[in-house]
Amino acid sequence: MQMSIEKLVSKGLHTMSELSLNEIDWILHEAEAFSKGTSWRPADQTFVANLFFEPSTRTKMSFEVAERKLGLEVLAFDGETSSVQKGETLYDTAKTLESIGAKALVIRHPKSKYYEELEDRLTIPIINAGDGCGQHPSQSLLDLLTIKQEFGTFKGVRVVICGDLRHSRVARSNAEILTRLGAKVLISGPMEWMEGFSDMYPYVSMDTAVERADVIMLLRIQNERHEGGPMSSGELYHLQHGLTIAREANMQRHSIIMHPAPVNRGVEIASELVECRRSRIFKQMENGVFIRMAILKRALQNL
Amino acid sequence: MQMSIEKLVSKGLHTMSELSLNEIDWILHEAEAFSKGTSWRPADQTFVANLFFEPSTRTKMSFEVAERKLGLEVLAFDGETSSVQKGETLYDTAKTLESIGAKALVIRHPKSKYYEELEDRLTIPIINAGDGCGQHPSQSLLDLLTIKQEFGTFKGVRVVICGDLRHSRVARSNAEILTRLGAKVLISGPMEWMEGFSDMYPYVSMDTAVERADVIMLLRIQNERHEGGPMSSGELYHLQHGLTIAREANMQRHSIIMHPAPVNRGVEIASELVECRRSRIFKQMENGVFIRMAILKRALQNL
Amino acid sequence: MQMSIEKLVSKGLHTMSELSLNEIDWILHEAEAFSKGTSWRPADQTFVANLFFEPSTRTKMSFEVAERKLGLEVLAFDGETSSVQKGETLYDTAKTLESIGAKALVIRHPKSKYYEELEDRLTIPIINAGDGCGQHPSQSLLDLLTIKQEFGTFKGVRVVICGDLRHSRVARSNAEILTRLGAKVLISGPMEWMEGFSDMYPYVSMDTAVERADVIMLLRIQNERHEGGPMSSGELYHLQHGLTIAREANMQRHSIIMHPAPVNRGVEIASELVECRRSRIFKQMENGVFIRMAILKRALQNL
Repeated sequence: MQMSIEKLVSKGLHTMSELSLNEIDWILHEAEAFSKGTSWRPADQTFVANLFFEPSTRTKMSFEVAERKLGLEVLAFDGETSSVQKGETLYDTAKTLESIGAKALVIRHPKSKYYEELEDRLTIPIINAGDGCGQHPSQSLLDLLTIKQEFGTFKGVRVVICGDLRHSRVARSNAEILTRLGAKVLISGPMEWMEGFSDMYPYVSMDTAVERADVIMLLRIQNERHEGGPMSSGELYHLQHGLTIAREANMQRHSIIMHPAPVNRGVEIASELVECRRSRIFKQMENGVFIRMAILKRALQNL
Repeated sequence: MQMSIEKLVSKGLHTMSELSLNEIDWILHEAEAFSKGTSWRPADQTFVANLFFEPSTRTKMSFEVAERKLGLEVLAFDGETSSVQKGETLYDTAKTLESIGAKALVIRHPKSKYYEELEDRLTIPIINAGDGCGQHPSQSLLDLLTIKQEFGTFKGVRVVICGDLRHSRVARSNAEILTRLGAKVLISGPMEWMEGFSDMYPYVSMDTAVERADVIMLLRIQNERHEGGPMSSGELYHLQHGLTIAREANMQRHSIIMHPAPVNRGVEIASELVECRRSRIFKQMENGVFIRMAILKRALQNL
Repeated sequence: MQMSIEKLVSKGLHTMSELSLNEIDWILHEAEAFSKGTSWRPADQTFVANLFFEPSTRTKMSFEVAERKLGLEVLAFDGETSSVQKGETLYDTAKTLESIGAKALVIRHPKSKYYEELEDRLTIPIINAGDGCGQHPSQSLLDLLTIKQEFGTFKGVRVVICGDLRHSRVARSNAEILTRLGAKVLISGPMEWMEGFSDMYPYVSMDTAVERADVIMLLRIQNERHEGGPMSSGELYHLQHGLTIAREANMQRHSIIMHPAPVNRGVEIASELVECRRSRIFKQMENGVFIRMAILKRALQNL
């Protein structure tokens, strides 16, 4: 283990697919250590900039807590009241932050693969906090940590990813990485939202999903990402595809519920279940801080 | 004194009425000590989140300075560019901040008694920085500190609360707590704005108020809270109910002027009087930092 | 040198013209020392407030990095979501920040000479980060530092200021201070934008400018400050007055390119030249942090 740590160079994180299983293991291990109180700080005063070009309280705050726990100086860049209004390119904004001293950039941007125009042109690592309809690797990793804490392994764990897979930033990468790690992935939800998944993963109805799953991994209905669509009402969705109180009663004794939040109460999940004994929703948020600490340590440790 | 301090448990602050006179005394005493340079910091790195769902530079900045003077890590949550846009409930937002590590929440929210849906469901204290047309206890306490610094006691001090009492967050709680502390409270202003006060406190005209008061406690005309109303023009209000230069000349030698700010110059008070020798307006702001340090210490000291 | 340092009192910075050549020399010297790793911090916890009433990522972030490198506590005041909405005057906002503990204010404001209503009424220094169409002294000083690093002196250095001089915050003050320091200043750009300059500084076409200049100092086309105007298209401007690839090829071997950024790529300068070997554009940004550290040290060192 020690050797593979030594070999890691300072680097960013754009997608889950760029990580080897060893690297994932290292990140989960570090995050777990942070959750138990291990601390790490860079030797010198170190600036990190958070560039959020889309609103996201949860992710932004989680990164910020992670950064401050590592003793970093956080530059909060608000993409909506900035020079970007003056037509500046993302590259010029990023290069500016590098010039004034940022040692890493955490970026959320509505453009998919925005990082491609940055890599090789900046010398500092980019940590992707969400790119368009692309990926959200820190979310994927906190999902992995939550599953590993629960089952001790990924091998054979049956995960049903439920809901709006097509518009999700984590559905595809979670499905892929869980499969690589030995888990069994199934999918559930409106057929229109299974596009690109239904030929690769078994489809089950929500009634079947709750009976078979070790993990019910709910996705957020991204109302802001598509108009109209198959669901004309939240209540109807809830009855057909949501985690109702009745369905939860049919889950296996050891099974858990996950959701990246923010939750649409009464749509993806009954409001009463958000904090039920199976729910790991707020545990996921806690884990998010530790995962992000590990990602940042990985990016900064060889400065 | 030491014993009552020991007995205090970590707790939030929602209203003035929940505070015993002993607790008020403790807060004023601690604030006074902070104003003289006493310092206190929690043993470990401690995060506090400020959630302002209404704009308020003054209160937000004052809490932030207080927090940083206590060495706290401040998470600034802007209610207007957040997941709240995605329809998240206040509870879910608050619970998220608790999950990622906040040890106390300072909240301003347009809904009166917003804290009722949070208490008993969160394990961390809520400090109310203003709820709808409800209360604003840190403002009330800084008003008390300013009066106590001036007169050494509350007993027999004659305080005239002037202006828009009905829409004020502090008028009712200040009137109640000052009465409990032994002060003599009177009211002044347009009769339409005395509703709910005029049967409990003696009404005086502004001309009489200035002659009798030890403290002229002006309230801000909350233009943003009511349309139309009895005052069609700021100048007219100033002549009828404001603290004019002529009225100030009739105040007693020892009397002081207070106002929570921001001031509408030329409406509640003549612009020339904002920094006159009687004015404690900027003193109140200074005191606000020390009061908030005391409130935060009270909330965090037994972690 | 030591003596002139001792004599400096804590003070703000509003315009370049208020600085003696000795003071400029001191600031450049301090900034150069900061760039080489010298550190300085005030003895006690010190708050500084940044009040930006106009969006400016670059300048705001640069000041913030400078402040944090000096160990200062930064209060970020956003002029667009603040009590200013309630009609509060700039003076009352500034006085509030002084009252709650700020030891210096960094202000950008759309009103020219906004600082005149503040000086003599506040006891803390104001650092001007841009006033209307007035000045932007920290930008001027970082320009000076960049030139001095390159040529070791200002005497005889030929600087051509190119572009929208009339609307620029730095054109006039840079022209004046460079002349005072012994440099030779020329101007270039659309004649309509030379108003107020063409009788004092030799005008050259851009083709001549590139041949003669030691420094091509480009200005940003401030699209947001004037409507219509002589340039109907960015491409046309680029051909007539911009730094094209062809023109760059005619520059002298030792000559450099400067631009305050953000750059309009393909307008003031060909996109390919933004990071060419002559470009000091990102070096200017780096220098901005060190210049602002020096300005802040000057303002705070005698507290």
